[in-house]
Amino acid sequence: MLKMDEIQKRLLLEVADLHDVPMGAYNLRANGKSVGRGSSANIEITSKEDGSGIDIHIKPGTKNESVHIPVVMSESGMKETVYNDFYIGEGADVVIVAGCGIDNCGTQDSEHDGVHRFFVGENAKVKYVEKHYGSGDGMGQRILNPVTEVTMEAGSSMEMEMVQIKGVDSTSRTTKANLKADASLIVRERLMTHGKQYAYSEYEVSLDGENASADVVSRGVAKDKSYQKLDLRIVGNAACHGHTECDSIIMDEGRILAVPSLEANNVDAMLVHEAAIGKIAGDQLIKLMTLGLTEKEAEEQIVNGFLK
Amino acid sequence: MLKMDEIQKRLLLEVADLHDVPMGAYNLRANGKSVGRGSSANIEITSKEDGSGIDIHIKPGTKNESVHIPVVMSESGMKETVYNDFYIGEGADVVIVAGCGIDNCGTQDSEHDGVHRFFVGENAKVKYVEKHYGSGDGMGQRILNPVTEVTMEAGSSMEMEMVQIKGVDSTSRTTKANLKADASLIVRERLMTHGKQYAYSEYEVSLDGENASADVVSRGVAKDKSYQKLDLRIVGNAACHGHTECDSIIMDEGRILAVPSLEANNVDAMLVHEAAIGKIAGDQLIKLMTLGLTEKEAEEQIVNGFLK
Repeated sequence: MLKMDEIQKRLLLEVADLHDVPMGAYNLRANGKSVGRGSSANIEITSKEDGSGIDIHIKPGTKNESVHIPVVMSESGMKETVYNDFYIGEGADVVIVAGCGIDNCGTQDSEHDGVHRFFVGENAKVKYVEKHYGSGDGMGQRILNPVTEVTMEAGSSMEMEMVQIKGVDSTSRTTKANLKADASLIVRERLMTHGKQYAYSEYEVSLDGENASADVVSRGVAKDKSYQKLDLRIVGNAACHGHTECDSIIMDEGRILAVPSLEANNVDAMLVHEAAIGKIAGDQLIKLMTLGLTEKEAEEQIVNGFLK
Repeated sequence: MLKMDEIQKRLLLEVADLHDVPMGAYNLRANGKSVGRGSSANIEITSKEDGSGIDIHIKPGTKNESVHIPVVMSESGMKETVYNDFYIGEGADVVIVAGCGIDNCGTQDSEHDGVHRFFVGENAKVKYVEKHYGSGDGMGQRILNPVTEVTMEAGSSMEMEMVQIKGVDSTSRTTKANLKADASLIVRERLMTHGKQYAYSEYEVSLDGENASADVVSRGVAKDKSYQKLDLRIVGNAACHGHTECDSIIMDEGRILAVPSLEANNVDAMLVHEAAIGKIAGDQLIKLMTLGLTEKEAEEQIVNGFLK
């Protein structure tokens, strides 16, 4: 077993559903250092020469394997930027699980900025899961600014599950993707903010190749006095299909600004967007309350269902 | 009859459906000068002291009356900015028709920038129609940059029909509205661009009072190498309902960028947005072509139906 304290183990469970060393390839980073790494026959993880992060090379044709690269931080006052590059070979079919958990019981801010670049080979298939979580009752902020850049070769597909569970005080999330012919991207983002948290999430998906497609759905819940700004942009540069959807629930004094944008630069681009912001419908609450739940419990159940 | 040449008469017909002097109050502006004006018992039109435009005062309770203020320009190389302020008294119910037609057969640009401000009194009801049209085979551009600012008192309602028919080379359209309690705004915008035309249309609607509501629908068709940028923003600052919709057809090498935005600053704000960009569906074309239309005729029929 890796050397981790109880807090780190709890964070690891929240962000990567892991109790122990995962199967397959992995790199576990704790408090700014790699504390465990494993490669497999098909997946090789190496440190970048300048120490700024890791390279993950997945051989062409690798099937049903996974890569876990969770990050946990339990020291107050840490600030790091890490660059991780994924090279996914042609025809591979893999699951990649990233995620960052910060526990900050101190007075100084803790910040992890992960820059992930994906080079998805022809006809490769990737499922990517990224969870962000914060805990700790210190005055120091828990800050996460992820940057995700995806380059998708012809015929490749990627499904991204981007989740900010709770406890992240400030986040600026940037995701960019460029798709070649027949590539397809599905994004499911879920953001929950509470207290005085601030979340900014920006997507820019360029459909550059014939028959490329993207479906980006972002769901957000802004509680208390938190604020969310969502910027979803789809650019159609070829005969392509793009859909974005932005559904948000506001509660208490939460505020949300949704700025989707569609840019059609080709006559055969088909782009569609929907957005809705509102509070939980009163009749939904009443229905659950007649079943015996308190108003708070009913709200919680609806929010959990919405973010599932 | 007013002194107008054939071109001016044709422009007047396009932008205001008028063959002659309209019933009710009116102000007709041609080539930078007022060439005819009429007030009614309830509607008074006066020139601003500094000559920059006109003030239109509509008495409280005025019912079923209309105001026409068309502008026609047939000289090449004219550039003017005109400020028109509308004061609509409590409980009035009126139709206001504005519109600008530019015919430019010369080599210099012709530009009309109309700044219209509406102060809509309590429980007043306004239907506003604004049409823009350009013609002429000169090299000079036909430029129209309208600014529309609407202040709506409690219980008032306004319906705006904003149409750019064709022939406008460059336009930057800005519309702002602030709504108090129980006020309601309906906007129907239709934009057609062709050739190398550029159209930018921006809306900012603030729902400031309890139970205010807005429904903003923009439909655009971008033909040839034209470009449209649409910026529809609804801000909910109270318990309110807001809906925006942006439907666009692209043809040939036309390009469209749609950037709607929803901002919810109050937990009881309900905001919804939809947008879609695409070309005319092939099966619609084929259906009309089997009825005997050529492809071009079929396209025209679909576009006309869409912009109706």
